[in-house]
Amino acid sequence: MKFISGVKPKETTEVTQILTGSYEGKTVKMEGSIHTIRAMGEMSFLVLRKAEGLIQCVCRQGNTDYDVKALKEESAVIVTGVVKQEERAPFGFEIHVTAIEVLSEPAEILPIAVSKWKLNTSLETKLHLRPITLRNPLERAKFRIQEGIVRGFRDFLHSQGFTEIHTPKIVARGAEGGSNVFKLDYFNKKAELGQSPQFYKQTMVGVYDRVFEAAPVFRAEKHNTTRHLNEYTSLDFEMGYISGFEEIMEMETAMLQYVMKLLEKEYQRELTMLQITLPNVEQIPAVPFAKAKELVADKYNRKIRNPYDLEPEEEQLIGTYFKEEFDSDFVFVTHYPSKKRPFYAMDDPADSKFTLSFDLLFKGLEVTTGGQRIHDYHTIIKKMEARGMNPEEIESYLMIFKYGMPPHGGLGIGLERLTMRLLDEHNIRETTLFPRDVTRLEP
Amino acid sequence: MKFISGVKPKETTEVTQILTGSYEGKTVKMEGSIHTIRAMGEMSFLVLRKAEGLIQCVCRQGNTDYDVKALKEESAVIVTGVVKQEERAPFGFEIHVTAIEVLSEPAEILPIAVSKWKLNTSLETKLHLRPITLRNPLERAKFRIQEGIVRGFRDFLHSQGFTEIHTPKIVARGAEGGSNVFKLDYFNKKAELGQSPQFYKQTMVGVYDRVFEAAPVFRAEKHNTTRHLNEYTSLDFEMGYISGFEEIMEMETAMLQYVMKLLEKEYQRELTMLQITLPNVEQIPAVPFAKAKELVADKYNRKIRNPYDLEPEEEQLIGTYFKEEFDSDFVFVTHYPSKKRPFYAMDDPADSKFTLSFDLLFKGLEVTTGGQRIHDYHTIIKKMEARGMNPEEIESYLMIFKYGMPPHGGLGIGLERLTMRLLDEHNIRETTLFPRDVTRLEP
Repeated sequence: MKFISGVKPKETTEVTQILTGSYEGKTVKMEGSIHTIRAMGEMSFLVLRKAEGLIQCVCRQGNTDYDVKALKEESAVIVTGVVKQEERAPFGFEIHVTAIEVLSEPAEILPIAVSKWKLNTSLETKLHLRPITLRNPLERAKFRIQEGIVRGFRDFLHSQGFTEIHTPKIVARGAEGGSNVFKLDYFNKKAELGQSPQFYKQTMVGVYDRVFEAAPVFRAEKHNTTRHLNEYTSLDFEMGYISGFEEIMEMETAMLQYVMKLLEKEYQRELTMLQITLPNVEQIPAVPFAKAKELVADKYNRKIRNPYDLEPEEEQLIGTYFKEEFDSDFVFVTHYPSKKRPFYAMDDPADSKFTLSFDLLFKGLEVTTGGQRIHDYHTIIKKMEARGMNPEEIESYLMIFKYGMPPHGGLGIGLERLTMRLLDEHNIRETTLFPRDVTRLEP
Repeated sequence: MKFISGVKPKETTEVTQILTGSYEGKTVKMEGSIHTIRAMGEMSFLVLRKAEGLIQCVCRQGNTDYDVKALKEESAVIVTGVVKQEERAPFGFEIHVTAIEVLSEPAEILPIAVSKWKLNTSLETKLHLRPITLRNPLERAKFRIQEGIVRGFRDFLHSQGFTEIHTPKIVARGAEGGSNVFKLDYFNKKAELGQSPQFYKQTMVGVYDRVFEAAPVFRAEKHNTTRHLNEYTSLDFEMGYISGFEEIMEMETAMLQYVMKLLEKEYQRELTMLQITLPNVEQIPAVPFAKAKELVADKYNRKIRNPYDLEPEEEQLIGTYFKEEFDSDFVFVTHYPSKKRPFYAMDDPADSKFTLSFDLLFKGLEVTTGGQRIHDYHTIIKKMEARGMNPEEIESYLMIFKYGMPPHGGLGIGLERLTMRLLDEHNIRETTLFPRDVTRLEP
């Protein structure tokens, strides 16, 4: 009988091994994809693309064990060669090739030069060819940063006693209501795709006190904008036993501090490639909604048209204001009007036209919505009835309040938006692997 | 201006603080939910439920600062009291209460006693009242174990150079084909819910060499069984530059070893509560499909009815065989028949009726499907055509082969199934937070 007992050492050498060992002058085998080939008379430079980055390989003419001219870009190969220090090469070394084994070959040449430093094409083409254009090192770097954000989010919350949960995405009824839900037929019953894990994460506060989830959510928004997606990754957390909604903002601030430190420590290569300066999150200003509107109206000479609404331009100007006045890329706007928030939001006891809630703006764009939730059964029933909602329709959610819930609150962060602002991109599709919008269902 | 700068120390004390500090005889405040109250003459025992476990609190009569009789189960409270060592209490300490502050109260008494050690009710009732029944400590423990599995999966793969990805769940076409897809209307276009991230994870191998994702997948299976769900969490990975499909099994084995160690180290309390002995995964036997059928036919006196199919009972018996003969709870069954695998599976060059693929059985149940994939463009086109499939329909997937892909393969693990087998449960709904089956869309 054959037994499998774990990962065997590979015959090939990894970049990190070379960087941390003594390989100078030694022969190694290294696998990768042929990123580019440049013939330079007696020498050819072959650049190998690996997950970690690009590796410069030098092929000398007269070496008859392989024919560089026969090689194709995007072939997968194993290169054998001698490691030589070379300061000008990526990672500070190059490989002087003695043999090349071709593992696979493309059927056609690339329709776009992914080996260009910056892809010189429209967003439309880039997205159409996404499976290929993502091979461009700058494009790859963006989604490595995105990975780092999610890792930081989870690792930090785990350290704070949060439990990770997996909640269903096919639901009987969306948490936010409204018309922007995708509907589907579920064995002859009406179902929807979850707009948010709201009901479930609140439910799980009654179980684990503190929970989080990083998972897809779905919004059938009919407008195509640079900051909306129809499917995105929502970073959600929810925490019990809070003494005020400020604790949620404090948790988010601490999480962002952790994420920035993680990116600085483990994603420096990508940050450098993308020329990103991480924002300062040591402290984030918090300003009430009404006050924020005033500040912006005063400073930028605007009229307040509707005290209970925030126009996109106002949001942008609040960002500008806090950058100019406090040198902060982030600002918490607190106490959103009650009618702008879902029924489960807790109203401010000081003024029930507002709620104990907040948005986090990052360079003038909302990247988080959060707040304290109602935990008392009678209060939530009353609020639903005042809004003309039927409590019977969401009985299985209301159950948690009927049988007792601690004071609690939480938030949801749009991962792609956060990444977009962090990377100073101007279209959310740039920081979404395979974006879904009104016209885009493929790739 | 107000500034938020991170998490402030709480006024209340956590269990871990008490366990690692010197709190004997000191007064603490502790928050939690009232799990049970037992009046015993002059004394009452109040059990506080916290994420970490249950805390025994002793209330003496005559203490007039609070009225135990007025307290309700499932109220959220802050208890003030003196910490006393008490070996018989959970965690080895109890709190002698001096004051109780009620934070919230339920509107009604629980319809089921969640404080019973084991919930004494039908699965049907348990699932109907899931938001409440999950508060039972044994129920909670199951999903903490599930959290541990996912953490281990991610942390191990991260250490092996895998990058985490987030791929769309609304897709133009499912990867597996067939009739078990949920369909939806996507802005007047036909769309489906992803049965697997297959196409996308393969695509991302061309980008990052090694990738993983832990996310929901959707299967519109019309039959209600104890081991099928219509939505589940799939733990997927895909790796490039493999020299054979054995490398995928090796990676999975090493991952399982890591997961078991993590559970042993950090989830001991839950394992003990659930009386779970972790399986030995030091080595996992691997047996070809045809051979496995033979072994079972010989030992258990069965006829092989169809050499290209595995009946559920056979699967079960293969599990029994390897338990009896090799004391292994796991077995890799390799080289599945080609017609039982999707078109992208790589056929065995030695016999094209079979594939370079495998299932992992855990106590006779398939918990993983994996294998090597075709990486050559012409080969995959030919196989599609032989199956009467139209390559034009999945052009954006086939693009990756046309422009070059390294040899690669991967797998998908059903998280709920793995948890079910690990916890010796007999129905997959027991290890799914909020299961979706043919009749169940709520809670």
